[in-house]
Amino acid sequence: MNPYIVANESRFLEELFALLRIPSVSADAKFADHVHTAADWVKDALLKAGATHAEVCQTPGYPIVYGETIVDPALPTVLVYGHYDVQPADPIELWTSPPFEPVVKDGKIYARGSSDDKGQMFMHIKALEVMMQTTGLPCNVKFMIEGEEEVGSANLGWFVAQNVERLKADVILISDTAILSNENPSITVGLRGLSYMEVEVTGPNRDLHSGIYGGAVGNPINVLCNMISQLVDQDGKITIPGFYDKVEDVSVEERTEMAKAPFDEAEFARDLGVDGLAGETGYSAHERVSIRPTLDVNGIWGGYTGEGSKTVIASKAYAKISMRLVPHQDSAEISQLFQKHFESIAPDSVKVKVGYHHGGQPAVTPTDSVAYKAAAMAFEEAWGKTPIPMREGGSIPIVALFERELGLKSVLMGFGLNSDAIHSPNEHYGIFNYLKGIETIPLFFKHYAELSK
Amino acid sequence: MNPYIVANESRFLEELFALLRIPSVSADAKFADHVHTAADWVKDALLKAGATHAEVCQTPGYPIVYGETIVDPALPTVLVYGHYDVQPADPIELWTSPPFEPVVKDGKIYARGSSDDKGQMFMHIKALEVMMQTTGLPCNVKFMIEGEEEVGSANLGWFVAQNVERLKADVILISDTAILSNENPSITVGLRGLSYMEVEVTGPNRDLHSGIYGGAVGNPINVLCNMISQLVDQDGKITIPGFYDKVEDVSVEERTEMAKAPFDEAEFARDLGVDGLAGETGYSAHERVSIRPTLDVNGIWGGYTGEGSKTVIASKAYAKISMRLVPHQDSAEISQLFQKHFESIAPDSVKVKVGYHHGGQPAVTPTDSVAYKAAAMAFEEAWGKTPIPMREGGSIPIVALFERELGLKSVLMGFGLNSDAIHSPNEHYGIFNYLKGIETIPLFFKHYAELSK
Repeated sequence: MNPYIVANESRFLEELFALLRIPSVSADAKFADHVHTAADWVKDALLKAGATHAEVCQTPGYPIVYGETIVDPALPTVLVYGHYDVQPADPIELWTSPPFEPVVKDGKIYARGSSDDKGQMFMHIKALEVMMQTTGLPCNVKFMIEGEEEVGSANLGWFVAQNVERLKADVILISDTAILSNENPSITVGLRGLSYMEVEVTGPNRDLHSGIYGGAVGNPINVLCNMISQLVDQDGKITIPGFYDKVEDVSVEERTEMAKAPFDEAEFARDLGVDGLAGETGYSAHERVSIRPTLDVNGIWGGYTGEGSKTVIASKAYAKISMRLVPHQDSAEISQLFQKHFESIAPDSVKVKVGYHHGGQPAVTPTDSVAYKAAAMAFEEAWGKTPIPMREGGSIPIVALFERELGLKSVLMGFGLNSDAIHSPNEHYGIFNYLKGIETIPLFFKHYAELSK
Repeated sequence: MNPYIVANESRFLEELFALLRIPSVSADAKFADHVHTAADWVKDALLKAGATHAEVCQTPGYPIVYGETIVDPALPTVLVYGHYDVQPADPIELWTSPPFEPVVKDGKIYARGSSDDKGQMFMHIKALEVMMQTTGLPCNVKFMIEGEEEVGSANLGWFVAQNVERLKADVILISDTAILSNENPSITVGLRGLSYMEVEVTGPNRDLHSGIYGGAVGNPINVLCNMISQLVDQDGKITIPGFYDKVEDVSVEERTEMAKAPFDEAEFARDLGVDGLAGETGYSAHERVSIRPTLDVNGIWGGYTGEGSKTVIASKAYAKISMRLVPHQDSAEISQLFQKHFESIAPDSVKVKVGYHHGGQPAVTPTDSVAYKAAAMAFEEAWGKTPIPMREGGSIPIVALFERELGLKSVLMGFGLNSDAIHSPNEHYGIFNYLKGIETIPLFFKHYAELSK
């Protein structure tokens, strides 16, 4: 391990803890002040780490923190992207320690955002400090840290379009993904896209007594359940007409390659505490979470949900439904197909409204680029292993956005683990991963500068 | 109208308002003090109205108010049943005036419980007063007013069994049902039973990120929707094996008689604001809500239900599901059939728990009894019309309980309207119905005494 990191380990942890204590939940307006506080904190941290310039850039939503250190215009420039906002902490009662009071247990930092993405983002700020204090910067570096990633990066496209000149770079470096395991480091080369919808089903114009009216009216909860159940068939195929039209059939070669990656389905099921897995017929669990699209209900509610019982037929029922997309599905098109289909299957006993929360395009990144090679060499040097190129199931819609707006490819050099429980209670991040990330990032800069010569 | 009622109309309303101001919600423990307050209030009201004895009888749950006036052991005795507890007020935001601050609009009293059952129950206390102050009591009267009707009358059976001697009577009189309309008074002769269940579906042992895991795990919300959708087929038939085994096929004669009752399906749909009705193939809407059993989801919840979006696969999803039963289905048996079936259709990607909230037996009351005839004559005298015998969709499980424990038939002389929005926001009760009920009840006592001679 780099001796500077060893010497500063406890301070690096304390600084991250300070950031984790700010409950910067972007999805819930009552945390708005904290989201702004986190932005200011990141700007200050950039300046302290050695950025020659940093500022909080206002947007129509939450601000984007921009920072840079330009050592020589002739050198290549790395644009680091990350986000300082976090997912809501609920269900809060399932946390074993308060989500915004980080604690260390078994070598892991427990806090909302510890992995996604404050911990991973802050590694880059500390890597900047490491380079500034030791080797110096082998490349120019720019930072673009946003506060709306968890709510669909609504204003990032606007910001990027307004700042094309300032954001000029040679590659984008992002740590917001996972490695296979600490024994099997990997680099994410594919990401699924997303269409996130919300539906409202209205039956009668008021809540009704289920005895007096039951049997003769379309119960919106039953109807919603029926409609949801029709969206995926018994083979796990999504039934929305046109949904698969643009889905890329992954080649036998790539599937054979994927099958070599360590992915133990029995262990996967055991970790989740389930007796059986589920999903699309004809694909392995590893394929189902990476190269195949999905449809999941993320939330459902309607009627009486309190203590005890109430014999009511609700007027309305709701669900949040999202689809993960694969190359070359288009998020806007899929959202429209969903809406059209959902409306078409509604019986005349109800009215439906379909709304759109957010989305993102799927992306695949090349493995033959200079940047990928530099990332692989950085892993080899720090971890002693060649990283495995992996497709991942999550979405980082901004990868497609950056390619479109800035003409730049991204390298997804994440250091998290899928078991970090991101978006769940008891999110955590290994101290090993945090420090190893801070060690690996400067090596990427070094190899990228050398390979770019 | 009875001149005593005319002279005391405004006081009769004020007294009811005082009772309606007590938020005696039995389903929610935080209203417990108010439920007890309502019991005390009813006891005092009985004594003021002329009961020679009244007391608040403790039970393992909320108390039962007992009262009586025995004028002559040789006279027949009428046992009045009612309840002083009310449904929860939620969704409270849909009320146009606060649920526990009664107001009169367009001749109707708006408040939770105004119809179900405080308004209808209190008519009997005022009818006692009317008789005591005018004609005297032609029968003995006993009152049994409970505080757990809206949560399944859990302790009523216990109380009745302990007080068989004290509750001795010739007939039970209950006002907790509706008439067809103010132009078409009716008497309820059939009631559906109820089995009220709660289900919990558990998928993974923690909330998961829908990108990382989506596609390979059974999403408990999707699974719950699939399972619910399987409970009722496309013809509106409930699919639980054995569910219909004991359902009585109502005779062609009775169905023909029913079809003569004024029930306008187009008006029914218009009132509910729906373009189409729903239900079991082969039955009219009127039949579907009265002589046929049902399965309705009364509440559903799971995953992220807050503002915005969260890309989560929930660990658990829940639903409250109730079935209305018809003669001769058995509530306990149906609950068991439901549980067995629901467990049997669960895929191995989830675990399910099925719990039981409460239930009640269906009941049919005779139309050839002295009590029914007395009720019909009372309606004829007060309303100028012969009441129509009607089967109603709701459940009053205590009708079967009283028959079993006390050997007594009930007369269901309700004065509400189905449009009273009981169990819904903006519950109301017509002042006309309230006063007409107070007028009709003493006439029942008169005719019942005469016919019993």
